Amino acid sequence: MKQIRTLQELNEYLSSEKQAGKTIGFVPTMGYLHEGHLQLAAQAVNKYDCVVMSIFVNPLQFGAGEDFETYPRDEQRDSRLAQNAGIDVLFIPEMEEMYPQKMTISLKVNEGADILCGKSRPGHFDGVATVVMKLFHMVEPDGAFFGQKDAQQVAVIKNMVRDFNMNIHIHTVPVVREKDGLAMSSRNIRLTAVERQEAPQIYQLLKDIVKMTEKNKTSVSSAEAKAYFQDHLHGKIDYVEILTFPDLLPPAPSYKGKLLAAAAVQYSQARLIDNIIWESGKDEQNV
Amino acid sequence: MKQIRTLQELNEYLSSEKQAGKTIGFVPTMGYLHEGHLQLAAQAVNKYDCVVMSIFVNPLQFGAGEDFETYPRDEQRDSRLAQNAGIDVLFIPEMEEMYPQKMTISLKVNEGADILCGKSRPGHFDGVATVVMKLFHMVEPDGAFFGQKDAQQVAVIKNMVRDFNMNIHIHTVPVVREKDGLAMSSRNIRLTAVERQEAPQIYQLLKDIVKMTEKNKTSVSSAEAKAYFQDHLHGKIDYVEILTFPDLLPPAPSYKGKLLAAAAVQYSQARLIDNIIWESGKDEQNV
Repeated sequence: MKQIRTLQELNEYLSSEKQAGKTIGFVPTMGYLHEGHLQLAAQAVNKYDCVVMSIFVNPLQFGAGEDFETYPRDEQRDSRLAQNAGIDVLFIPEMEEMYPQKMTISLKVNEGADILCGKSRPGHFDGVATVVMKLFHMVEPDGAFFGQKDAQQVAVIKNMVRDFNMNIHIHTVPVVREKDGLAMSSRNIRLTAVERQEAPQIYQLLKDIVKMTEKNKTSVSSAEAKAYFQDHLHGKIDYVEILTFPDLLPPAPSYKGKLLAAAAVQYSQARLIDNIIWESGKDEQNV
Repeated sequence: MKQIRTLQELNEYLSSEKQAGKTIGFVPTMGYLHEGHLQLAAQAVNKYDCVVMSIFVNPLQFGAGEDFETYPRDEQRDSRLAQNAGIDVLFIPEMEEMYPQKMTISLKVNEGADILCGKSRPGHFDGVATVVMKLFHMVEPDGAFFGQKDAQQVAVIKNMVRDFNMNIHIHTVPVVREKDGLAMSSRNIRLTAVERQEAPQIYQLLKDIVKMTEKNKTSVSSAEAKAYFQDHLHGKIDYVEILTFPDLLPPAPSYKGKLLAAAAVQYSQARLIDNIIWESGKDEQNV
């Protein structure tokens, strides 16, 4: 595995790979890799000749008072895990390489940004779109891999690729979970023991919401869903929402099709998100 | 010359050209070609193996009450001129091909957009940046050609390419003029005979401003420059500005380096722009 820190080196390496006719897969991450990232890597390695993984904790997508400084970092461990996963190039740019000067032009996410995580994290998805577009231009991959855990992020990236005619296939990989159902996240290490014990319930409660929706043949309202979560958790409920996917709109009463049930719960040192996407209105449920 | 109207056909054509190892040059235009465009084409043909010219009158860069509907169009003539200029592909997308749905993510030009043309045309450069980024992704050229006449546009495009790490070389081509000095523009045909007679003075007055700046060893203020234009022209002066180039900042009194003198004049049916870029503070002037 080649470890690259500068754009120049990345360009040189990739242009020779591309000239040799190799397809390029890309897995952008903020590091502190877990099994979820490794699933993205495995699928990328399976589908593309040369796979680039980037590690960059992007300040633009963190708000004031958020955990940019304390976001967990462990480059040595990440490097070992990436190598074992079959990554060809680990791209770890410094801040000056990514943002050598203030951006004079910015990307603004106008739709799908003021709901779910965007509501409590203004500007978050603008920052995500900006860094992903920059990375896409740096790597110019044939395909890129994102985890379904960040369902709203996936929707924003897919919209960006469509709106700006980027010639990149976006692959989505299902949520990877601990044995007890907790969605894997780099932030899970910041849960206290008590919080860690409670956290798997987020997934259980989401499954309950799905069941209620299918049983009632109409989606549980967000207020009801939030109250249901509040009754069962000590963590502070940021949101629980049921929306159409990938449009992220409130479903009509008779809606049949893909639904997203998504929740965000704030614990003392970590904000966790999770979601279920399912086909609503079918006779048999596969939840 | 191949004439292409759909993205699919463009992709097919260009991917085979790229696989054959050809370099791609790109000349984006809004059509109604004049000698200025043909100079861009000539330089592109000279430098790249395969040259794409696009013709698309982009609604996003026209404001309310501007001349989107009346912008001159003549596809047959354009096609003949492009072919004679050695263009390989003339890409003429329909509106639905460029904007199949509302953009959910937009580009916002934060710096260099509230001066010069941006001041009287709010959102204009957001629309320019958006369509150019889309076209860049569609064509994925090695180099793209822009006329220096739209000096602010060139600055915005260069900033965009730098900010978003686009791997495209931006070539700038000097203003092409009629024999009497009038900068060529698709909009010149909308001048009345009397206006057409006056219009070449814009360039003469800009040259005067440059001379005064060099003689005084300090740049003429924008207010003085505007008053000077008002004394000599019947057209309505939108702005006359002297700014550093390409940063587009007000020059310090002792400034030495590239300066831009730019003017916009509104006639009854056409708004004309022109500019001179020169190296200020040198002993010999080449104006």
